[in-house]
Amino acid sequence: MNVLIVYAHPEPRSLNGSLKDFSVRRLEAGHTVQVSDLYAMNWKAPLDARDSLAPATGDRFDPSRASKHAFENGLQSPDIAAEQARLRWADAVILQFPLWWFSMPAIMKGWVERVYAYGFAYGVGEHSDARWGDRYGEGTFAGKRAMLVVTTGGWESHYSPRGINGPIDDVLFPIQHGILYYPGFDVLPPFVVYRTSRIDEQKFLQVRDALGERLDNLWNTAPIPFSSAKRRRLSDSRAYA
Amino acid sequence: MNVLIVYAHPEPRSLNGSLKDFSVRRLEAGHTVQVSDLYAMNWKAPLDARDSLAPATGDRFDPSRASKHAFENGLQSPDIAAEQARLRWADAVILQFPLWWFSMPAIMKGWVERVYAYGFAYGVGEHSDARWGDRYGEGTFAGKRAMLVVTTGGWESHYSPRGINGPIDDVLFPIQHGILYYPGFDVLPPFVVYRTSRIDEQKFLQVRDALGERLDNLWNTAPIPFSSAKRRRLSDSRAYA
Repeated sequence: MNVLIVYAHPEPRSLNGSLKDFSVRRLEAGHTVQVSDLYAMNWKAPLDARDSLAPATGDRFDPSRASKHAFENGLQSPDIAAEQARLRWADAVILQFPLWWFSMPAIMKGWVERVYAYGFAYGVGEHSDARWGDRYGEGTFAGKRAMLVVTTGGWESHYSPRGINGPIDDVLFPIQHGILYYPGFDVLPPFVVYRTSRIDEQKFLQVRDALGERLDNLWNTAPIPFSSAKRRRLSDSRAYA
Repeated sequence: MNVLIVYAHPEPRSLNGSLKDFSVRRLEAGHTVQVSDLYAMNWKAPLDARDSLAPATGDRFDPSRASKHAFENGLQSPDIAAEQARLRWADAVILQFPLWWFSMPAIMKGWVERVYAYGFAYGVGEHSDARWGDRYGEGTFAGKRAMLVVTTGGWESHYSPRGINGPIDDVLFPIQHGILYYPGFDVLPPFVVYRTSRIDEQKFLQVRDALGERLDNLWNTAPIPFSSAKRRRLSDSRAYA
């Protein structure tokens, strides 16, 4: 199988860096692995008009329209097209990052915004007054799996169902449901490392082993059912009628 | 009162640009307004070691530790210090952006990550095994108000309590609770504009008037109670004992 790790941490000698290196080695025992190391690649984060190679017309810049035009006409910035090729190639995608302000780092958000082109990750399928495209399990990435590997300084209890930060599932909902499930991925339960500042050598080995087990089971772990979303979808279909 | 608008859209002639210009005019009738127009400022999105002016030591880069050191020693990159001064100055802060992949644009996420320094927006107050600082209504921005102004292409029904995208409150939870309430802001209900591609001149005037009314009532709108968070906090305190 082909696994793409999209990774965002500015310091290779960090816990994140060590876990990423470990993941690559573990996965390479049975799979082919590619890594998009966004800081190392100096990934351009902000989405803007320069993402299309189409000549400037003086028209106002409409992000969706520009993305659609560039995607359909082979006019995307080469860094975007290269990441799309990796996503097409991958059977499974791992997004690995430190949780900064309850979301992914800006550089990874910019990867999503620029690589997830119109016609590729949204704007796929019929768009009309009655339907808004193929999405939520139906998109381009249907059949592929995705998983978050996330580190945070906070206590696990603070992300528990009654934790002060809100449940980790609520915190990750816009990413897991909106960024991964929307374009079709089967989303596996996240692997979350808490209280990173207190991880000594012994704890690191425990974390590493637990991550290794999750990687070994990438193809037989049950995805998050997003059952409420399915129910929503049904009620939503009724709303169309 | 002093109002800071932090604004992220790459096209000044967009709906977002028009609404931002309108907000400035409306607010200037009774208040002092500053705008951080992140695309126009060419804001550096990724957080990295260059955010501190401290000489490189060869040590591994620890984002929190570097942020703390730079903040305490006046060694922050000037663009960061300037935005912190604006936040201190402001009585109310408006974050205005298009909802891209169920969150704020990368350039604004990068504003949060870099401006929200350790000692400024987190790492404030006592940190010990029993307490993790002043946060959730207790931080640096206590007494200030914040509000999101958000545009999205999707239908309002798709963000309703049973909508396919999830309720808008769930989608915005990491921002409103994690980015705004955490460092102390009173968070007002968001102003959300749906189905942006279908906004004609008449609809625009309606949206503008509704936004104007929200701006006129910036100081007498009841904040989101985040009551579940308060309950969580209580149960969390018990967990400390």
